[in-house]
Amino acid sequence: MTSQGEPQEGFSTLSKVTGPSSWSRVSCPCCISSHIEPLVLIQLAENVQPITKQWIMSMISAPVKAGGAQLLVHPGEDMKGDMIVVAAPRCTLLRVTEDLGLCKTYQDGNMTAFSFEDRDNFCNIDNMQQFLTLAERQYIVKHELDSMRAMEDQRVPGVPAPKGKLKARESILQKLEKAGVIRNITPLHDQKLLSALGKQWYSHKSLWGQPLDSIHAYFGGTIAYYFSFLDFYTLSLFPPAILGLFITFFLPSANFSSGNKTDSEPTLPKQDDDQPSVSSYMVQAVFSMLWSTVFMELWKRRSAALSYHWGTFNLAEQFQEPRPGFHGELSTNPVTGRLEPLFPEWKRRLRIGLVSVPVVGVFLGLVVMGMAGFYFFERLVSGWHKASGSYFTVVLLYLPSIAHILYTNVLGNIYRNVALKLTEAENHREESSFDYHYTTKVLVFTFFNNFAVLFHIAFFKEDLPLLRKRLSSLLIVTQVVNQFTEVVVPFLVDRFLTSADRNLKEDDPEVDHLQAQGSLPAFPGLFAEYIELLVQFGYLSLFSCVYPLTAPLLLLNNLTEIRTDAYKLCKLFNKPFSAPVANMGVWQPAFEVLSFISVMSNCWLLLLSPHVKELTEDAGLSSSKVLVIAVIVEHVLIMVKMILAFMIPDEPDWVRIKREQIEYHSMQALKKQRIMRSSVDDKLPSKA
Amino acid sequence: MTSQGEPQEGFSTLSKVTGPSSWSRVSCPCCISSHIEPLVLIQLAENVQPITKQWIMSMISAPVKAGGAQLLVHPGEDMKGDMIVVAAPRCTLLRVTEDLGLCKTYQDGNMTAFSFEDRDNFCNIDNMQQFLTLAERQYIVKHELDSMRAMEDQRVPGVPAPKGKLKARESILQKLEKAGVIRNITPLHDQKLLSALGKQWYSHKSLWGQPLDSIHAYFGGTIAYYFSFLDFYTLSLFPPAILGLFITFFLPSANFSSGNKTDSEPTLPKQDDDQPSVSSYMVQAVFSMLWSTVFMELWKRRSAALSYHWGTFNLAEQFQEPRPGFHGELSTNPVTGRLEPLFPEWKRRLRIGLVSVPVVGVFLGLVVMGMAGFYFFERLVSGWHKASGSYFTVVLLYLPSIAHILYTNVLGNIYRNVALKLTEAENHREESSFDYHYTTKVLVFTFFNNFAVLFHIAFFKEDLPLLRKRLSSLLIVTQVVNQFTEVVVPFLVDRFLTSADRNLKEDDPEVDHLQAQGSLPAFPGLFAEYIELLVQFGYLSLFSCVYPLTAPLLLLNNLTEIRTDAYKLCKLFNKPFSAPVANMGVWQPAFEVLSFISVMSNCWLLLLSPHVKELTEDAGLSSSKVLVIAVIVEHVLIMVKMILAFMIPDEPDWVRIKREQIEYHSMQALKKQRIMRSSVDDKLPSKA
Repeated sequence: MTSQGEPQEGFSTLSKVTGPSSWSRVSCPCCISSHIEPLVLIQLAENVQPITKQWIMSMISAPVKAGGAQLLVHPGEDMKGDMIVVAAPRCTLLRVTEDLGLCKTYQDGNMTAFSFEDRDNFCNIDNMQQFLTLAERQYIVKHELDSMRAMEDQRVPGVPAPKGKLKARESILQKLEKAGVIRNITPLHDQKLLSALGKQWYSHKSLWGQPLDSIHAYFGGTIAYYFSFLDFYTLSLFPPAILGLFITFFLPSANFSSGNKTDSEPTLPKQDDDQPSVSSYMVQAVFSMLWSTVFMELWKRRSAALSYHWGTFNLAEQFQEPRPGFHGELSTNPVTGRLEPLFPEWKRRLRIGLVSVPVVGVFLGLVVMGMAGFYFFERLVSGWHKASGSYFTVVLLYLPSIAHILYTNVLGNIYRNVALKLTEAENHREESSFDYHYTTKVLVFTFFNNFAVLFHIAFFKEDLPLLRKRLSSLLIVTQVVNQFTEVVVPFLVDRFLTSADRNLKEDDPEVDHLQAQGSLPAFPGLFAEYIELLVQFGYLSLFSCVYPLTAPLLLLNNLTEIRTDAYKLCKLFNKPFSAPVANMGVWQPAFEVLSFISVMSNCWLLLLSPHVKELTEDAGLSSSKVLVIAVIVEHVLIMVKMILAFMIPDEPDWVRIKREQIEYHSMQALKKQRIMRSSVDDKLPSKA
Repeated sequence: MTSQGEPQEGFSTLSKVTGPSSWSRVSCPCCISSHIEPLVLIQLAENVQPITKQWIMSMISAPVKAGGAQLLVHPGEDMKGDMIVVAAPRCTLLRVTEDLGLCKTYQDGNMTAFSFEDRDNFCNIDNMQQFLTLAERQYIVKHELDSMRAMEDQRVPGVPAPKGKLKARESILQKLEKAGVIRNITPLHDQKLLSALGKQWYSHKSLWGQPLDSIHAYFGGTIAYYFSFLDFYTLSLFPPAILGLFITFFLPSANFSSGNKTDSEPTLPKQDDDQPSVSSYMVQAVFSMLWSTVFMELWKRRSAALSYHWGTFNLAEQFQEPRPGFHGELSTNPVTGRLEPLFPEWKRRLRIGLVSVPVVGVFLGLVVMGMAGFYFFERLVSGWHKASGSYFTVVLLYLPSIAHILYTNVLGNIYRNVALKLTEAENHREESSFDYHYTTKVLVFTFFNNFAVLFHIAFFKEDLPLLRKRLSSLLIVTQVVNQFTEVVVPFLVDRFLTSADRNLKEDDPEVDHLQAQGSLPAFPGLFAEYIELLVQFGYLSLFSCVYPLTAPLLLLNNLTEIRTDAYKLCKLFNKPFSAPVANMGVWQPAFEVLSFISVMSNCWLLLLSPHVKELTEDAGLSSSKVLVIAVIVEHVLIMVKMILAFMIPDEPDWVRIKREQIEYHSMQALKKQRIMRSSVDDKLPSKA
């Protein structure tokens, strides 16, 4: 398939050499002398006509005013001609850095919002490789490609009419992807940097510490935030893990609930059947509530510090061009004065409140119905089996589970599509806002799907031993399965099936490296990774008081998770684009909400624990009085949580001071500028 | 007491005439020609020595650099010499306007943060009476008086050592007030404006509409916000009032709970004993939950619009000088670069979390204990009375109530002092933050005190008829009592006791007008007014479903409340200082929190209603299952509330756009300024 080994002309021009030859011409004099670094690979469909490729290349190198991206393109020059390699001239990089609101080190040592006009006062401005990280440079290229727009109604040359018709202001890239002309767009790996990073990261001997800054530089904001959080989370798991081990192995748990021995699974460790004593229930519940608050608050501080450190604390997405899919009435933006589509905020909110939320609610209802149906049929079938006991009914016994799994999967797939459509209909202006709302929708559903059974057991069946058993099997089984599917399978596939294409030496032709990169599967995104952490965190904070070994098991899991995720990202997938971000987005509130729900859940579990039941019965309290007391205790604990959260400021003092300095100085600057402008106005007439 | 009728020299200089004579000298040339308007009256204690008065006057007129206030003073010149009249030169007014961050109309018609250097581009800049409102001018004088500071350790002349000793950077005014040298500081009324305002406001024939802009101009921000809120609240009461009337008089309420007839009070209207039917309970409960959300969200929008309109949306208190009572290590503020005391935020938060909150909790516990004690002794005493029935035990019957009232009052007084001390110990940097925390403390306690009995009846006694009776008597009795004490008493006092001193004609000497103003009682602040509204709102949103006439009664009350509050403010008290504010401060979240608590309370009351009880008993649900369902319903309703709140944006689009414009332009300006500065830096060496 690949053109391996065939010497061709112009390959050397793809490497990082000074001066363009096959590359498109650089328009401004300041960028000519800098050497060209291939950043992004565009793969076209195989049947794309040369005239279309030519047109795409001309658009990419066209100036922004003409609807282009003002980037450098190289035709790739392999046999099939289905590649375009894109690089960025210095001017474009710097301009977009300002547009994005990225902060860079100023000459006075502070992180300062970059300004093109003031570029000479920023550090490392002469070396783009140092000034911007690789991930930032690649994101900038992606950003500019995304913002290519048709200036008028026109046709894409070589593409038949219905697909190739472009309306004025339509996003060119989106259109080409929809029309199937562009197969995919990938940022290119830098093999030297990658192997250095890999050594530091997953080949590292010590169990602890990740090269977060290098990860940020190489893979970019969202991915660096994920690994920072994973790091922080794993570290934070030590206290509950130690407490869990202590409770399990050192506290006297004299009471055995041996009544359920019959249906206990043989694979589970022995302490499953130990009922932890009241005091350990209490200690574990209260501890996990306080711990989750302190953990989240400290993470917020760390997140704020990282955001300053990585120069993303001043991103001003609302002042940028809207995202490609955004539509609305074309008008002048009253804030920036640019011509762009506008869409009123209240319409969006109405759509969210009146359409999206009810639809999501319906799907959650379907999950509950599915579960109810499952339980109903299971009871029905086991009734039949007990009644008749034939060979046929044994097979029937599996039917409800299979039906439920099928139902859940189909529902999940339908839901994801519906969620995407709903979020598109909400018409978000900013990419981050779109992601936020889409992720929230999928997240709520996935979480509900994961926890519906556990909640059912805990709140309706009120069966703590069963809950404990479920929890431990979920923890152990899902961990083993996850580790296996996430790493072992891709690793084996990688080693034995696809590696023939990819294990290239450094002196192999450049184009083969490119081809190899295009052949890897696309990185599936961080959703799966984050939701795994969230579900884990849910097990821990919602139910851990019935199974104290949760935290140690999670700790073990995370320590391997870090390495395997790292390996996966570096080796098994295409490099993903990763936007500069100031926090982990929707996952932050998701963890916080969970930590509030955990208060309710823990209070309830405490109430259900047999010892508390005995105690209240001894005290002669009616069950509704006990419930009222539980509700009051719950509210007091939520208060304590809120006070604790209040007492730990969300950002470290030094970050707050930096932020306020910027605020103050820009307030002052605005006043100064007005004076300047009005004094210029005054002078003009006198000159005339 | 007053020096009425005695002709004296220099009186005419107090009136608004051009050119100073007895006034202290204006330092800058631009202020000399403008006429002098007496703004604030300082009343000294009677035994103050002339040398002290002289020193105070010299400090007030001293430049800011020397620790003074840079204001104009006039010795007052009555017989006793215990008055100082203060006015403000134009320069001081403008400088402080900038410091406060007030926005004024720019030449392009937008509200823009005032800048002294750019003053000529603001509208009305030549006429201070138009440029700043009377309330703003007076607040500025107060602000400057407050910020007078001793530059070094010194003594106040004529005041003995321990009281008169000033440390460096100590607030002079605070010291003088503590030492008893200054009796009080009052802004002066402008009788012409006042009578015009009064005509528009409370003498107005129509029941509707208040001259909010004039109120804002004359009385200032906090007071204008109170009346705007009262206005908006009263208007919003119409829908629930109509619903309440409809439910009471038109819905069939077939079920009479005649069991409690024995203890029904004869003064209450008949429908007290009607049990509203299940459907009306439900309608009322759900309606009041939705209504309270929509009401608060719409008020937020109105509040944002008012804040823009009144030029207070850009107040930057954190960049101003700290409030007088603030202490800390003297150091350079890293943001503004000024030398001032600094106090770390985390210390403050620790103090709030670890000291203030627990102490407040203890006091709330004492309230509960008091109530428990009251019920205990009441039962005890009535037991005795039934047992013996002597004359002595009849007297004893009143004892628990009297003891409880005494206890509550004493506790309340102690608590207010403790709250003040706690808030002082929290060491807030900004005046508004201090107010916020102090008010919160008192508010929580007062609210708890007011509602403890009702909550006890609703949640522990679970006695709905008693709750209904209590609520109606509270509503009717407190309204009558309030209206009486708030207005009739002060009015009578005003008419027959003090008016002799005050009913002066316009041609009476100026000094008598001043004396008269000093003789009125100080305005007690808005706390009592706001808490009345909050408690009302509590009755309505928490319990109204058991007594649908709540809303109509409140509406009636508010319609009179507006006029009586207005009359009170204009006629019966000294004019208060009122800071420019951007919202109603702590009262906003207080109302919102209440509206959330109302969901819980309504769900609970619904659960208790006899019909729902019957329904659940018919359905064969256990009481704890019913409670779980109620908790789920409650959470769903809270979700609905949150979605509703989300769907109504907190500020109107046009305000958001203005805000973002300012944000965007200051971001741009900061970048421009940096370029300018660096180009200046570049030129300097070349010149040398």
